Amino acid sequence: MTDSAAAAPTPSEPPLVATLLHEGVFRIVMQRPKQMNALSSKMMAALSAELTRAADDPEIRVILLGAEGNVFCAGHDLKELTAARAESDRGRATYERIMRQCSDLMQQIVRHPKPVIAVVTGVATAAGCQLVASCDLALATDTATFCTPGVNIGLFCSTPMVALSRNVAPKQAMEMLLTGESIDASTAKEFGLINRIVPRDYLDQVVQKYAEVIASKSSHTLKVGKEAFYRQLEMPLSDAYNHAANVMVENMLARDAEEGISAFLQKRSPEWSDS
Amino acid sequence: MTDSAAAAPTPSEPPLVATLLHEGVFRIVMQRPKQMNALSSKMMAALSAELTRAADDPEIRVILLGAEGNVFCAGHDLKELTAARAESDRGRATYERIMRQCSDLMQQIVRHPKPVIAVVTGVATAAGCQLVASCDLALATDTATFCTPGVNIGLFCSTPMVALSRNVAPKQAMEMLLTGESIDASTAKEFGLINRIVPRDYLDQVVQKYAEVIASKSSHTLKVGKEAFYRQLEMPLSDAYNHAANVMVENMLARDAEEGISAFLQKRSPEWSDS
Amino acid sequence: MTDSAAAAPTPSEPPLVATLLHEGVFRIVMQRPKQMNALSSKMMAALSAELTRAADDPEIRVILLGAEGNVFCAGHDLKELTAARAESDRGRATYERIMRQCSDLMQQIVRHPKPVIAVVTGVATAAGCQLVASCDLALATDTATFCTPGVNIGLFCSTPMVALSRNVAPKQAMEMLLTGESIDASTAKEFGLINRIVPRDYLDQVVQKYAEVIASKSSHTLKVGKEAFYRQLEMPLSDAYNHAANVMVENMLARDAEEGISAFLQKRSPEWSDS
Repeated sequence: MTDSAAAAPTPSEPPLVATLLHEGVFRIVMQRPKQMNALSSKMMAALSAELTRAADDPEIRVILLGAEGNVFCAGHDLKELTAARAESDRGRATYERIMRQCSDLMQQIVRHPKPVIAVVTGVATAAGCQLVASCDLALATDTATFCTPGVNIGLFCSTPMVALSRNVAPKQAMEMLLTGESIDASTAKEFGLINRIVPRDYLDQVVQKYAEVIASKSSHTLKVGKEAFYRQLEMPLSDAYNHAANVMVENMLARDAEEGISAFLQKRSPEWSDS
Repeated sequence: MTDSAAAAPTPSEPPLVATLLHEGVFRIVMQRPKQMNALSSKMMAALSAELTRAADDPEIRVILLGAEGNVFCAGHDLKELTAARAESDRGRATYERIMRQCSDLMQQIVRHPKPVIAVVTGVATAAGCQLVASCDLALATDTATFCTPGVNIGLFCSTPMVALSRNVAPKQAMEMLLTGESIDASTAKEFGLINRIVPRDYLDQVVQKYAEVIASKSSHTLKVGKEAFYRQLEMPLSDAYNHAANVMVENMLARDAEEGISAFLQKRSPEWSDS
Repeated sequence: MTDSAAAAPTPSEPPLVATLLHEGVFRIVMQRPKQMNALSSKMMAALSAELTRAADDPEIRVILLGAEGNVFCAGHDLKELTAARAESDRGRATYERIMRQCSDLMQQIVRHPKPVIAVVTGVATAAGCQLVASCDLALATDTATFCTPGVNIGLFCSTPMVALSRNVAPKQAMEMLLTGESIDASTAKEFGLINRIVPRDYLDQVVQKYAEVIASKSSHTLKVGKEAFYRQLEMPLSDAYNHAANVMVENMLARDAEEGISAFLQKRSPEWSDS
């Protein structure tokens, strides 16, 4: 198994992920419903490859991350993990590679220059829940559920909790992690894990429209702002202000702010440099 | 433009801010409703000057920060920012000064020895939303709205997000920052950005009474506690406990705790050293 | 007063804490309702001793921390604190010892290898509120209330706020700390300070059942996961992922994950190494 082969379908199967670009909104859809869209090494490589491609494509302004079927994503591929136990080191090297690959994928989303929005229509569990938590925003239908049930199989959701505990309050995260039980979309919204619950019947339209609002902004500004958001979040207050103030000054001197502010004062629509 | 001239009104205009002291509660009210109480350099200097004065005045025990008109505060003064583009450095020095002035003002509130409470009756946008987030507490009427719409004009609300992201969950902050859309008072309360929604008709009485509850405490104790709150928040758990335990020991040995505990055990009202 | 004597009852009094072990769930119940279960040095020593004992007892899988009477815990023992003022250093050494003892107790809960769940049926105030905040999870009846009223007696709840501010949003914590006012169970749940409100009439059954869900997991996995949770929470994102990924690899190679995953794939119940 190599990364370059990762996204290649077998003759009888569709690609691991489908993509669609419409009005600046790029959809990445996991297409292994029978495998519950598990994050096998191949699936992670396929997602990562699409994210890499999307970073450099000027046509792509916002990314939607969804899935086919009733399971958004069931987390790691337990069969792949179990198979590695037959290796001479009992799987250690494989587990190290897979955990690094998974952590890299999650951080690729956080560090991606474009906003990434999870669209959750079913069960998001373990690393699948982590995927939702790692996105900048998350939309879900009322059929979505979220859980970190690793504790049920003796494998605590330790990497998922990195993302989860940066989204929801400690006791809320701990209840999910210690009991392994699911929360529904309404609870996930209360906890801050998702932004909005959208009706299933009009999902595509609502999600597209929501994403287009963000796609209408300057890509340069979105990139600068998203990067600054996660950086300043890890700093003490005074450092955060120093960093953000520098970002703001450079942003003011960039073309799109000059155009945007002029357009606003002249009561006209702005023309972004990349639009 | 110098700081000393900042608060001076022109003949035809009222002062930038009005102040009123009643029962230990000091109101600072922004008075530029036609300019949407924008944080021009002059307005920031005027606010800062009043905060500095309030820090040393023993009569002032709690500070209320409000505004006249339907806009609490519209953030930076875009005309002032735009005018600076004509400067030889395209405004860089001016932007650096303004961003530093703004960040200093926000941190002056956080480091102020007295509790500062925002009273929001209208739109709080960009640095205006940051002003609310920077206060220790915030009260609002149901006509208040909050947004960080810089992204709409190509200028991401990078400094506002420093305060915002320390008040609300990451995905909630990100939605405000990436879409630029407003949230109402009820949503702001759910997010933790404001403490209470108060009725417009009885606003002054309710706010005054709320502030007087805090004004009735020992100013020494409030100062010690507020300072420790923000310091320990940035520390790892064990350091935070070491710091807070030291603060607690000194607090126990100070006059007001001795008096307060004695009064409590003797079932009488305490007499604070400064009251 | 020595630590070794701490848990010894006087002839006429019951032990400071009662304990009960049932189905892996260990209840520690504070038994000084007339003293409002205040955290005297003796009470803290008694709680700490039971926690130490519970850490090493393989029969104990989950810990419940409750109290007898209408007051869960009223915080520090003000009479003990006041008596120390007669000492030659005005109590400084005593206060240093008590604050360190209290901070150590709270951190003992956080670092305890087993999940600790607060069961709150009455008033939890000052260090009593801190006790709730320090637990991994918290259940409460609708008769429970929570407050940090130290400011009323001139002694800011500086150590309680370390735990409180790591559970609830800053403005919510600040309102409790600056006003000293109580919040009810429903508000505490919204704030994230407690997980669930349980009916008083069926409290024991509901709490026991809730704890047994967690007790049914692998103790090894719970220990590894809880420890990683609090460690990664204090790290920047990339460090947190490195740490959690290492924990996950070791967890995969441990016996209980191998058994748990095998059992799951074979659709049978797992047999943990310690069950």
